[in-house]
Amino acid sequence: MAGLTERQLVLLLRERFRTTSGALELGIGDDAAILAGQDAAWACSVDASVQGVHFDLTYLSLEDVGYRAFQAAVSDLAAMGAEPVAALSALILPRALSRDDIDHLTRGQAQASVDTQCPIVGGNIARGHELSITTTVLGSCDRPLRRDGARAGEQLWVIGPLGLAAAGLSCLRLGLDGKSPAERPVPARTISERRDGWSSRQMASIAQCVSAWRRPRAQLIRGRALRQLASAGIDVSDGLAADARQLALASGVRIVIEEARLRAALEPCLVSTSRALRRSALHFALYGGEEYALLATGRSADRPVWATPIGYVTRGAGVMLAARGQRRPLRGGFDHMVT
Amino acid sequence: MAGLTERQLVLLLRERFRTTSGALELGIGDDAAILAGQDAAWACSVDASVQGVHFDLTYLSLEDVGYRAFQAAVSDLAAMGAEPVAALSALILPRALSRDDIDHLTRGQAQASVDTQCPIVGGNIARGHELSITTTVLGSCDRPLRRDGARAGEQLWVIGPLGLAAAGLSCLRLGLDGKSPAERPVPARTISERRDGWSSRQMASIAQCVSAWRRPRAQLIRGRALRQLASAGIDVSDGLAADARQLALASGVRIVIEEARLRAALEPCLVSTSRALRRSALHFALYGGEEYALLATGRSADRPVWATPIGYVTRGAGVMLAARGQRRPLRGGFDHMVT
Repeated sequence: MAGLTERQLVLLLRERFRTTSGALELGIGDDAAILAGQDAAWACSVDASVQGVHFDLTYLSLEDVGYRAFQAAVSDLAAMGAEPVAALSALILPRALSRDDIDHLTRGQAQASVDTQCPIVGGNIARGHELSITTTVLGSCDRPLRRDGARAGEQLWVIGPLGLAAAGLSCLRLGLDGKSPAERPVPARTISERRDGWSSRQMASIAQCVSAWRRPRAQLIRGRALRQLASAGIDVSDGLAADARQLALASGVRIVIEEARLRAALEPCLVSTSRALRRSALHFALYGGEEYALLATGRSADRPVWATPIGYVTRGAGVMLAARGQRRPLRGGFDHMVT
Repeated sequence: MAGLTERQLVLLLRERFRTTSGALELGIGDDAAILAGQDAAWACSVDASVQGVHFDLTYLSLEDVGYRAFQAAVSDLAAMGAEPVAALSALILPRALSRDDIDHLTRGQAQASVDTQCPIVGGNIARGHELSITTTVLGSCDRPLRRDGARAGEQLWVIGPLGLAAAGLSCLRLGLDGKSPAERPVPARTISERRDGWSSRQMASIAQCVSAWRRPRAQLIRGRALRQLASAGIDVSDGLAADARQLALASGVRIVIEEARLRAALEPCLVSTSRALRRSALHFALYGGEEYALLATGRSADRPVWATPIGYVTRGAGVMLAARGQRRPLRGGFDHMVT
């Protein structure tokens, strides 16, 4: 970390994460942050983002890395229907990281903190060989949206984009970011000028998918609204198939995803990008993670317009895909432990 | 991690960290843990323990590592005078770690969680190349003991042992643990049978110092009692000299440590061990960290019997050591960033 002392780093972070949150009674610099008490229950969660496992710097800037790590953590609050109150940022920083690098990383965190209205009120800095960002989030939550409330007969809803992030990453791996050279951020060296005769609309779709992967957004507002409407909810961090399985398991039900409805729910930019890549949009939607849509269940009559029905809940276990009158079990999905 | 899936690990941890805390409304297994609301303010803090930086496995078992990492985090609550409510454990686990290794690590965390009455209600598991344990702690805190309240004219108090942990580590590095071979835990290979004619009392002192380093205890009860008595407080994690400097800096005062009083405050086992090692007990007390005594300031009349006066607060800045009518500035201490 280029000779920065712990104290210099703390001062840098205090400046970077400066906040005027009403709930904060004492911020960065003491042994702990102090938050005002509240009648409502608290949701608390922690999420780690490790270099080489959750991200690498081939297609992401350090600013992206900080932004994504923060949104990933806050997404757990969205999935509970909680309102963000505060976050703690624990960084493990390799010595090779320069002051500029730390500046970029924390700028991304700070931007996500502003976007989610979740102030960073404390944290920890440690040296290590492997860069990691571990974010604790605390939220206010008077009626949490749990995973275990889904009941047979209910609908399955999705809120937010599915498959865009995975398609975006595929584009980047092919050297496509959908941008002109002038718009391109670092690391530009990994992106070649490969349009292959695609239309500007296709290029815009690609850019949208790339942005979904680089700058995901936790569905906080809709998560809160779901508390009154849904019976269960989870965020899609590991892919629709995998997280639907988690929800089914927690609720002791079977979830059936209807292929036709899922296809109808796909974002036009995903369809366009998948076509350009000659890949299956459905596959991206079922198995792509890292974009933090919400998956929820509820009665058909309670469904808000912004929640798209893509299936239903029955008795049984596991996740099935229904197409053309047949059901087949959906396996797979993403496990950071095993892959 | 020996083929354990994320789900298997979560189940293992849910079992290991099982709790019946009254404050916990929803524990491990959902997107976030849910804690009951409370009128009192919340103290929240996070602390990371990284292999090769904060610990290595030469002289510590993984159970020790888990125990120490947890106590180190909880010590920040002690330093605020907060009462532990809940903790979140974020583990980064290298693939080489076996199921037994994870079992030992989490057993140590669970033991510390019981000892501090701070239930682990959630967390995160990630793969990585470098083992780290990042612990978030949440506490109830109606009148936090801040670092910035020290005023000229007050006394400086220490609560808990100073220098024992550093002396204990020195013993281990010399191949001494103060135990007979039969009492010795793994890794026994690093300990030789080197008594050099010392008395069993000296060996007992060494064992006490080694234990202080391997199994530190956050001063939670006395930290809470200090809220009503002290003007400022901090925990000694980086050594008396370094943490006194932090307190002086935060409060805008000078702290003077009186050598004679500090010597009088030293634990007999530290004096005995230092003599056996032919090292300075004072040096261990001034510069040894990792044992989580509390340092506090307050009016002489308010001092509880269990707080030992070792100096005073004056106008100025920095930390001085006063001995034989002279004062000299104390420098140094431990910075995980720089060393």
